[in-house]
Amino acid sequence: MTNAIRQSHLFTKTRKEAPTDEVSKNAQLLIRAGYIHKEMAGVYSWLPLGLRTFNNIVNVIREEMNAVGGQEVNMASLQDPEIWRITDRWDDEAVDAWFKTQLKNGTELGLGFTHEEPLARLMKDHVNSYKDLPKLVYQFQTKFRNETRAKSGVMRTREFVMKDLYTFARTQEEHDDLYERLAESYIKVFSRVGIGERTFKTFASGGVFSKYSHEFQTLTDAGEDTIYVSKEKGIAINEEVYTDEVLAEVGVSKDDLEQKVASEVGNIFSLGTKYAEAMGLQFKNEEGESTTPIMGSYGIGPARLMGVIAETLSDDKGLVWPEEVAPFRYHLVVLDNGNEEVKDDAERIFLEMKERGISVLYDDRNVRAVEKFADADLLGIPKRVIVSEKTLASGEYELVARATGSSSFVHEQDLYNK
Amino acid sequence: MTNAIRQSHLFTKTRKEAPTDEVSKNAQLLIRAGYIHKEMAGVYSWLPLGLRTFNNIVNVIREEMNAVGGQEVNMASLQDPEIWRITDRWDDEAVDAWFKTQLKNGTELGLGFTHEEPLARLMKDHVNSYKDLPKLVYQFQTKFRNETRAKSGVMRTREFVMKDLYTFARTQEEHDDLYERLAESYIKVFSRVGIGERTFKTFASGGVFSKYSHEFQTLTDAGEDTIYVSKEKGIAINEEVYTDEVLAEVGVSKDDLEQKVASEVGNIFSLGTKYAEAMGLQFKNEEGESTTPIMGSYGIGPARLMGVIAETLSDDKGLVWPEEVAPFRYHLVVLDNGNEEVKDDAERIFLEMKERGISVLYDDRNVRAVEKFADADLLGIPKRVIVSEKTLASGEYELVARATGSSSFVHEQDLYNK
Repeated sequence: MTNAIRQSHLFTKTRKEAPTDEVSKNAQLLIRAGYIHKEMAGVYSWLPLGLRTFNNIVNVIREEMNAVGGQEVNMASLQDPEIWRITDRWDDEAVDAWFKTQLKNGTELGLGFTHEEPLARLMKDHVNSYKDLPKLVYQFQTKFRNETRAKSGVMRTREFVMKDLYTFARTQEEHDDLYERLAESYIKVFSRVGIGERTFKTFASGGVFSKYSHEFQTLTDAGEDTIYVSKEKGIAINEEVYTDEVLAEVGVSKDDLEQKVASEVGNIFSLGTKYAEAMGLQFKNEEGESTTPIMGSYGIGPARLMGVIAETLSDDKGLVWPEEVAPFRYHLVVLDNGNEEVKDDAERIFLEMKERGISVLYDDRNVRAVEKFADADLLGIPKRVIVSEKTLASGEYELVARATGSSSFVHEQDLYNK
Repeated sequence: MTNAIRQSHLFTKTRKEAPTDEVSKNAQLLIRAGYIHKEMAGVYSWLPLGLRTFNNIVNVIREEMNAVGGQEVNMASLQDPEIWRITDRWDDEAVDAWFKTQLKNGTELGLGFTHEEPLARLMKDHVNSYKDLPKLVYQFQTKFRNETRAKSGVMRTREFVMKDLYTFARTQEEHDDLYERLAESYIKVFSRVGIGERTFKTFASGGVFSKYSHEFQTLTDAGEDTIYVSKEKGIAINEEVYTDEVLAEVGVSKDDLEQKVASEVGNIFSLGTKYAEAMGLQFKNEEGESTTPIMGSYGIGPARLMGVIAETLSDDKGLVWPEEVAPFRYHLVVLDNGNEEVKDDAERIFLEMKERGISVLYDDRNVRAVEKFADADLLGIPKRVIVSEKTLASGEYELVARATGSSSFVHEQDLYNK
């Protein structure tokens, strides 16, 4: 699909009611707007408008990962049990999220739910010396997780694309520096996709190699986590580590904190040498000694993010997308009432926008104004441009902001400059 | 990764030898060049240079699918057995390519090897009237196929992205027209990725609804098919339909045809009403009668295509990529021999190219010239720009074409204009 399309060309239709078996608000809205299709519980397909929105989120994340030096790869879903046995993550007793399958000869395979093991193994072919490090490697890759329940729409599904980035550092200091850079890049991502103000870097449980990990939690009633937030200090603590000891370390008191429901939109982990050691990944340091790199892993689920945006920014009329996320920037709506001059004027503006590479969905359908407006509200494109007999007479076009409903009248040239 | 990067930044390394268990030429070259990583037989991961190349092929296909009115979606891999039972394609006896898995409650699921059934079901939500048709819907989606043998590198794998497009037409005439448009767009794709001259539209077996389907077969010894080609007439016949009757229908005689080994890089099928009927997909025609749309399916595997390009265009020094496919357009190679002025000049050219958005890989590594040239040959980037003491003295830069080895000397501005 190009960047300027006619609504009459779109194969998707909106619908008044969501399917009765769909309980989550994000999926209800996304299905009604024709952004996604439910295949079965916890499994959705992306339709044209949904895929465009999803890809915009992916591109924001990609830009920020590239900005910190990330290199993009795409690893296989099918997993060799051998390497997962080494880290004791193959057994269903140890990891209960596996989907498993098998080759015709009966060899068991897994469908990857994360990629520490295969990436550490892969890096053995490319890392020899301290000169080869540090490195940041990431992918947008389809994960499979055998969720027992899946009732949160696109926020928790059995098959989903995850951006997972992995860092390989020579020293703890270098790792700590990368970890901070990634944390900062995550904050930029959440800000760009419009949920920065309600998203908090949150202390969560660590592991053997670090006391804490960090989650990025967005306040929403659709969330599954409980966190304690200090909006003033801009920090939060997951209830799993909400103890007097941790409060003292973080430097907040219970009085500063508010209990909130939130959804985890990203997480960052220090992995220490666990996976690199298990896979035999080593490098020669400046003294020529074999050394194990320190790894970190950093995840964001773009679909989870899209669901959270839908949950938190939508209103009772429908979806409301921030500029960087919206499937189109402009929604050009013609109210021609059979007036050919009005139709021609809208057509002309559409072609001018198309020519200029402006992202626009043009509602050229032969339906009533009330239906066009209801659909435009449901689709949630940020800026609506209305072309009607009134605008034709005045020589100005009505520009309506979806988020606020505020309306202004602008000259044609202003549509192209923005 | 941005469009201009330093080779010292890349985490991948080239290697002199391919793994001993890798028998296919395409995989040997792609592994040696650091484009892919073998996870296990028939399963590869894409590394940065490989992913860029792969994505370039994807984008060529996407542009051509959009040009014929295709709308992009992305459907789930996890498949609900229910709909496949309707068309009798669930049973392993009927379809032997399934990978199957299950939910925790024991419900069996499949991993999609194609998408006729789920897409026909999906379209029921969006197609009601003849006004809603025709439609062309496509995706780049990961298919899983439980291949018994997988020895052709990236040309036949157990997990691969396929571009599958499906058409929905109101009448046979409309279907035939779409079928022809897609056939033409396929020819454009193969031409753009550099294998147009050796790729032939090939008559192959049809099915219940049409006498023939068509494959696009590229001549290569690495292929698995036998076809009979008339280069003069630009047509070919798969051996599976190579009969006197078919020859007569197609209008060629055995004397016109040469027996060749080829690889199928695309296929197009008329599906008739089979899948739409099975899924209950109908529309009201102009007379208000319920009618079943006629479907077609049209596949291209971008990785297969990349493998075939590697097989057919590479030489004994390494990969040779056509312009539209190559991971970078320019390979900027500095031979500074410790001369800071030379280094500075290359650095300056790199930044100028970067600034202009020119796609360039800059070999800034501290290695010998012979190693840089060997790696450049192996990586196969179309245009090599050499910066050395000699070029600095002459004020001109050496430009070498990877495919032909032809060399010329150009002014700096010519590097930016091309």
